[in-house]
Amino acid sequence: MTDKLTIEEVYKAKDVLKDVARHPRLVPTKIRQDAEIYLKPECLQHTGSFKLRGAYYKISQLTPEEKERGVIACSAGNHAQGVALGAKNNGIKALICLPAGAPISKVEATKSYGAEICLVPGVYDDAYAKAIELRDKHGYTFVHPFDDPLVIAGQGTIGLEILEEMPDVDAIVVPVGGGGLISGLAFAVKTLRPDIKVYGVQADGAPSMAESVHLHRMIHLNSVSTIADGIAVKEPGINTFDLCNRYVDEIVTVSDEEIAAAILYLMEKQKLVSEGAGAVSVAAVMTGKIPVKGKKVVCLVSGGNIDVNTLNRVIARGLKVGGRLSNLTIDLADKPGQLSGVCNVIANLGGNVLAINHERTGHNRSINDCTIRIELETRNHEHIQQIKEGLHENGFQVVE
Amino acid sequence: MTDKLTIEEVYKAKDVLKDVARHPRLVPTKIRQDAEIYLKPECLQHTGSFKLRGAYYKISQLTPEEKERGVIACSAGNHAQGVALGAKNNGIKALICLPAGAPISKVEATKSYGAEICLVPGVYDDAYAKAIELRDKHGYTFVHPFDDPLVIAGQGTIGLEILEEMPDVDAIVVPVGGGGLISGLAFAVKTLRPDIKVYGVQADGAPSMAESVHLHRMIHLNSVSTIADGIAVKEPGINTFDLCNRYVDEIVTVSDEEIAAAILYLMEKQKLVSEGAGAVSVAAVMTGKIPVKGKKVVCLVSGGNIDVNTLNRVIARGLKVGGRLSNLTIDLADKPGQLSGVCNVIANLGGNVLAINHERTGHNRSINDCTIRIELETRNHEHIQQIKEGLHENGFQVVE
Repeated sequence: MTDKLTIEEVYKAKDVLKDVARHPRLVPTKIRQDAEIYLKPECLQHTGSFKLRGAYYKISQLTPEEKERGVIACSAGNHAQGVALGAKNNGIKALICLPAGAPISKVEATKSYGAEICLVPGVYDDAYAKAIELRDKHGYTFVHPFDDPLVIAGQGTIGLEILEEMPDVDAIVVPVGGGGLISGLAFAVKTLRPDIKVYGVQADGAPSMAESVHLHRMIHLNSVSTIADGIAVKEPGINTFDLCNRYVDEIVTVSDEEIAAAILYLMEKQKLVSEGAGAVSVAAVMTGKIPVKGKKVVCLVSGGNIDVNTLNRVIARGLKVGGRLSNLTIDLADKPGQLSGVCNVIANLGGNVLAINHERTGHNRSINDCTIRIELETRNHEHIQQIKEGLHENGFQVVE
Repeated sequence: MTDKLTIEEVYKAKDVLKDVARHPRLVPTKIRQDAEIYLKPECLQHTGSFKLRGAYYKISQLTPEEKERGVIACSAGNHAQGVALGAKNNGIKALICLPAGAPISKVEATKSYGAEICLVPGVYDDAYAKAIELRDKHGYTFVHPFDDPLVIAGQGTIGLEILEEMPDVDAIVVPVGGGGLISGLAFAVKTLRPDIKVYGVQADGAPSMAESVHLHRMIHLNSVSTIADGIAVKEPGINTFDLCNRYVDEIVTVSDEEIAAAILYLMEKQKLVSEGAGAVSVAAVMTGKIPVKGKKVVCLVSGGNIDVNTLNRVIARGLKVGGRLSNLTIDLADKPGQLSGVCNVIANLGGNVLAINHERTGHNRSINDCTIRIELETRNHEHIQQIKEGLHENGFQVVE
């Protein structure tokens, strides 16, 4: 089936997408001192992810009869929005099946592109079954999120764009879920420039393609768990597995902690909002899991559709991991002047108090004791240690 | 003094900055249905703001003797980072005076560009006085954050870039603090294309330039208060006041609420991190304060250096204002099944519970009552109202 994929198809997709996809420039970064790292910011793409490319191209190639009947897709995320906008721009009807528990923000975004929504009780698999049922009943064309040669060709246009903008690139690092993006990109890049390395990155909690490629057979994960919901895929596609085997140099994995740190880095240093799935490429390069020393490397940031509530939690977590936010619990004798004493020590050492909670009940040893919990903005872990030592030297008891 | 500013100087600055400044493409948006709105994303600039342009150009034009002695500046924010990187790239020494209470993240960022930091006890004015004292003592060149013709020429390069990328633009909307950015931009644009409108935007809580232009005299505000700290400036510069009078069509103001909504919009819909000062242009267009109907408009997003803790608060605030997050307090009889009853009503109406706090003490009328506080993800204000009514119909008492 992947014999259908040709470099000519990818070039054709590029032409079709010429005025549809946005082409934000590569963004230079200082992610590493020992390499030149650039970002391909597909989070700035229409619909907030690269998914528009494949969906739009697939839809554009339907026959007039197929277009007349409309398309159907199943997704709680980026693919839904890509199909919705792709259908709208091609002037055809789209029906998207979503699991009923999908985040409100994603449902609203998909609606806003004009698609009809079918909320299906249950989880993703139920929504998928419903979509297939509706396809068979009404003759809609099903737009697969990744395992379709035309969808793969659409995603491959990103490879052509990178080669055009940076012909001397040494390596490209790509997030991997079902594998549509990396299959298209690796196929295009390796066909034209076999010397360029293409690396894939999955989440520790959803390593379906990484393990499949490693074991030389398609595996199915019973469960997946990661903050990178956009790549939480239980099994590779038949086409994408084959293409990854043939064209991808290596697939590594990163932890949720590492992904959160990468999201925070992209926000703070690059002013880009990325979702978990979008940031795994950066996480892998930050943590040295990919050999980049002395190389010119492009990390694909594949999307930015992160729920803002999740983002809030990621920020708080990232600040804590980096020693930029810390919580101290201190036991105090409940007498005047104790709290101000603690505050003075912290202020003198350059800590910035964000919140204080002062309570009398709790785990204290004596009925006259009280406990304060302080949330502090700090510089790093060393700074936190300095503040703890300063409190200790001044007779205050920090509870570990 | 502003007679020194010529369009040739701006072109020269453009040439000097050619390989120094980044040139991310204009970003199309759907901010309004009735106009074509694009963003010029200077938040993606090196150092996270446009300030690098003016600082770098000013420093590049120093004599060898001046370069030898180094530069000094006073800023707690973007200008500090611009001068630090501008000096580093020109291979000269920079000393930055900061008020001692400046956010840790900004101090660290400035240090990371290689500048020497002088933390001055007190507020901005104290740091400024110290910088002038050190300049007089050591012969450093003082790099003014806005009121310097070379700095203004550097910022003006943004105007040339917009004209180049979008020659048919009708209007440009620009954040205004001290006025360096809009002065340079308006001068360049109006000199070349007097038909293009240039609008300025300030914060309600710091309208120094808006009022000065309105009253035809430079005014000094005794205090300023806004989340847009990058444009919280008490008085315009002599040069910038003169240039705004001559070249800017109108200056409007926006509230902190409107700024927060714009920051959230840019994050969610455009995947761009902007600071308060950077988002005022978008806020003004979103709220209809600038006549854009049927026009092609560029909003300058001037910077993205927002403290992540502030960003967290802005997100929470924005979600509440938009009805996407709500807190309900409900009085319950403390008997089994009550909590699950409440949860059922909410779930059936499509609300998503984020946090529940259940307590017995409090303001309740009876010793047997208890209170629950629920934090909910909701679709909009109408949805919140539906949930309140649903609870009421099922016999639960929502406390307003």
